Parts: sequence; structure tokens; C-alpha cells
Amino acid sequence: VGVLRIGHRIERDKRLTTHCALAARALGAKEFVYTGERDKRCEATVAGVVENWGGSFSVRHSTSWKKELRSAKRKKQTIVHLTMYGLPFEGELANIRKKRRLLVVVGGKKIRGEVYAEADYNLGVTNQPHSEAGALAVFLHSLGLRQRFSGWRTKVLPSARGKRVRQRKI
Amino acid sequence: VGVLRIGHRIERDKRLTTHCALAARALGAKEFVYTGERDKRCEATVAGVVENWGGSFSVRHSTSWKKELRSAKRKKQTIVHLTMYGLPFEGELANIRKKRRLLVVVGGKKIRGEVYAEADYNLGVTNQPHSEAGALAVFLHSLGLRQRFSGWRTKVLPSARGKRVRQRKI
Repeated sequence: VGVLRIGHRIERDKRLTTHCALAARALGAKEFVYTGERDKRCEATVAGVVENWGGSFSVRHSTSWKKELRSAKRKKQTIVHLTMYGLPFEGELANIRKKRRLLVVVGGKKIRGEVYAEADYNLGVTNQPHSEAGALAVFLHSLGLRQRFSGWRTKVLPSARGKRVRQRKI
Repeated sequence: VGVLRIGHRIERDKRLTTHCALAARALGAKEFVYTGERDKRCEATVAGVVENWGGSFSVRHSTSWKKELRSAKRKKQTIVHLTMYGLPFEGELANIRKKRRLLVVVGGKKIRGEVYAEADYNLGVTNQPHSEAGALAVFLHSLGLRQRFSGWRTKVLPSARGKRVRQRKI
């Protein structure tokens, strides 16, 4: 599963795109591509998390979402566009879980009509305005992807109170 | 269900806190309280969404998370602190769904030990670093709260392609 985030603006979306990328990683996606302004700081933050917390996850900037959608079609990825104008995502989950290759697209308000036309599914996580990071997280969590973080240097030991971590050198 | 977001910083968290608030609203919470720097722009954005998209949802700033936690205890709210160091939230969902009054707490990295001690539950939406907005959205979605947005002026008519909305005057 890959995620495409359209229309990043460094100033406005500073930490939001980073949060989308980290949520994508935490919930089992393997690749995060973003268009709009290139943001090396966002990329460095995500790369640092991968280095420390493990797993295989990549971030890259792309100059064109059209190119990314075309490439997704060539690779037979099913394109799921998350939008508050879409159909309730719950109704399509069973179908989507059967697909082996997915590209989940999230964007800002100014998504062009072409994205709606090119997507295999336009789905809403509620039909209310809220958060790309929130919608993406809910959708990916509902897919129930396997989460593996091999090669970690730091790992949380879940606990009822306080913070416990394990560290190791690699 | 209420949400408490600890430690907002206007510059750094500009749109993140707004996204947390909007995700809270979209997924059925009724109140959003935040501490840290007061941010009138965030409050205005959320109030504008409520006015246009309906429902009863309030945002307010508080000068002290300690005060809010104490007040939650007085009101017999169950305090659920979402943290990557906590126990997997899935395991506690059934218990938490039985509670009638919940306060869900999210924060940044610098949450004090006292929050962990005061919370009835410290729960992780994965044990990986990601997004408050994402974690909050996944948790609230999993609670399956009723979402009602009466008094709307704008409403989405969910559709497979494109954007359809209904408008009405109130």
C-alpha cells in the first residue's frame, strides 16, 4: 500500500504532511509520495523515524500527481481517493481489502476534478470537513495492514503507566 | 465525549490542533479543550465549521491541564490518554465503550508523568510515533460514536464522483 499526498505547501502544511507520512508508516503503508512544494525537512523527519523505529518505508517528492496516478494505473494499483465528498468508506472496505495493490490519495481542498475521475474509489471518512491525517489513519487502520518494524533501534514496550522503551545497536 | 489537547503552540502546531478539533467533531465528540498558547484563529476556524456544517460542538482554551483533569475526575469522566507508550487500545475498547463520560487526552512529546498517573487508561494507537490527529481519529472512530449534525447549512450528498452538496438557509 502506498500513499499519495497532493499539494503540500511548506508553510501551511508544515507538520501535517509529516504527520500523514508517519501515520501511513505506523499503520502499515510502505511508501509515501507527495506533490506540491518539496520539503526536505519533512523528508528528513520521516527518514529519521524509519532509521530509529525500523521497518521499510520510503518518502519521496514528485513533481506531478498526474504522473503518479498514471504510473499507479500501469502498476495495476487500485486508486482510493479519500475525500469528504465521497461514499462512506465502510461500505467499500470488504472489496478494497481484496486488492493487492493500493494507492491511497489524500489532498487539500483544491483537488481537481481529474483526481475524482481517475480514482477507482472516492471515499469519505465521514462527510464532514476534518483532517487528512485523521482520515488517512482511520482508513488504513480499518484495512488492518500488517505492521512490521524490523531493524528497529528503539521499540516501545507497551505499558499501562509511563514510558518503557528498549534500545539496541544495529 | 470530550477531548483535551495539551500543549498547543501556535507556530508549531498551527493547523494540527485545528485538525484534531475537527476530527473530534466529525467523529462524534462534543467538546474540545486545549491548553498551551491560546489560538483564536484555530477557535474561529472550528466555530466556522460548526456554524456551517452543524452539530453541537464547542472549543475552549484552558490555562491548565491539571485543572481540566481534576474537573474531569469530579465529573466522573473516564480519562483515556492516547500515547505511543500505552497499551494497545484495541484491548480496552470493550470496557471503554461502557463508560458514559469520557475525556480523551492527546498531547505532544512533552507530556508530563502526571498525565500518565492521572489517566484511567494510557493507550497506544500503535506503539509507533505518528500523529495526534491520526491517533485521535482512529480511537474515536473505533468507539463508534453517534454523529449528528443538526442545524447544518451545508451538507455533503455522498457521491462516487465529484462534489455534491446541499445548502439551506437557517
